[in-house]
Amino acid sequence: MPIKMYDLAGAEVDRRFSPFCWRTKMALAHKQLEVETIPWRYADKAALAFANWDRVPVIVDNGKPVVDSWAIALHLEETYPARPPLFSSAPSASRFYNSWADTVLNPAIARIVVLDIFNHLAPQDREYFRRTREERLGARLEEVVKDRESRLPVFRQLLEPMRQTLIAQPFLGGDAPLYSDYIVFGSLMWARSISPMRLLDPADPVEAWRQRLLNRFNGMPRKAPGYW
Amino acid sequence: MPIKMYDLAGAEVDRRFSPFCWRTKMALAHKQLEVETIPWRYADKAALAFANWDRVPVIVDNGKPVVDSWAIALHLEETYPARPPLFSSAPSASRFYNSWADTVLNPAIARIVVLDIFNHLAPQDREYFRRTREERLGARLEEVVKDRESRLPVFRQLLEPMRQTLIAQPFLGGDAPLYSDYIVFGSLMWARSISPMRLLDPADPVEAWRQRLLNRFNGMPRKAPGYW
Repeated sequence: MPIKMYDLAGAEVDRRFSPFCWRTKMALAHKQLEVETIPWRYADKAALAFANWDRVPVIVDNGKPVVDSWAIALHLEETYPARPPLFSSAPSASRFYNSWADTVLNPAIARIVVLDIFNHLAPQDREYFRRTREERLGARLEEVVKDRESRLPVFRQLLEPMRQTLIAQPFLGGDAPLYSDYIVFGSLMWARSISPMRLLDPADPVEAWRQRLLNRFNGMPRKAPGYW
Repeated sequence: MPIKMYDLAGAEVDRRFSPFCWRTKMALAHKQLEVETIPWRYADKAALAFANWDRVPVIVDNGKPVVDSWAIALHLEETYPARPPLFSSAPSASRFYNSWADTVLNPAIARIVVLDIFNHLAPQDREYFRRTREERLGARLEEVVKDRESRLPVFRQLLEPMRQTLIAQPFLGGDAPLYSDYIVFGSLMWARSISPMRLLDPADPVEAWRQRLLNRFNGMPRKAPGYW
């Protein structure tokens, strides 16, 4: 029985853009586990009541619900130890990447692409999204992205620690990708899924790394609807 | 024969403030290796000619010179595998911490404490330090630190990924400190050694983590000359 996964979708059912769901999808592919995704919209909170949760990703593995991308990664590592490891050591040694993506990268990306997300949402999600995000960002979505081109250099500067790492080695995990790579990659898949704005310079070592990851799993991430 | 280590010193021979030397000192203590430090000043470049290098830390282990804090950590891990591990997995999986400290934390700390460093330097180092740092920072040292109080909130915000990690677990490495912890701790030891300005709020989880590390190795780091 494949693992079921609730996966945030836009108006188009195939446009799956959540950075956290991308972390989980890459982790499932890495573990070579079959997955059946269930498109989910913000308006579908009732569909997650069985898991006592209100956000995605949520997976159901052998009848057991597991919520939150980090907890799902730990669950997969523990439940499927014989499959390719997501962590090269205690997962706690990688938690910093999760915090870095959540507190540094994602907020910076949101301020660039938030209106693009809005424009790709299913109609029933738009009012909810606009209200909650405008509250969080303290401004109209249109206002937030008004001078977004000027934010690009700042965003690229935030990637400097990653860039220095990727100049020295092909993946954050070392010679091969690990869950730490998927955490950050998820943030870029989020932007790629819904925004035509290229966040990375073609000559950036971070872009070369992203291209390597787009090719993983027979090009699964590259085949997902997206702009760049 | 103890390992010899060239260690940056101020005017007072015991004031050892280099963040990179602190990484190495913590790594040596973690490995329970005896070390004999040799105070070094910027003016002593000739003393490192034997290693074909011009910066510290440089160690001499069994007659073999090893330069650069990251390379020294790899050397210790490889040469002393039976001693407590500095990495819980392939060191490459921790390289990001090194890049983060070097490109995000250290430049931010430098802009707050650079004049304090100058004031603690040996006389023969002052002209060199002022010239190279003013070139790098594009302003007189006095100018750089003029409104440094206003930089504190920005600096503390940079620690957010660490803070989120340390809310979830006691050390970056997990339940116990690893080299990743020492990398970042080195940056704070640098500031503590030469500046009375407390970079951390007493209620910050990062400060609680720093206090735990100050106590390690029988309080070795706490006993080092410093302000907070």
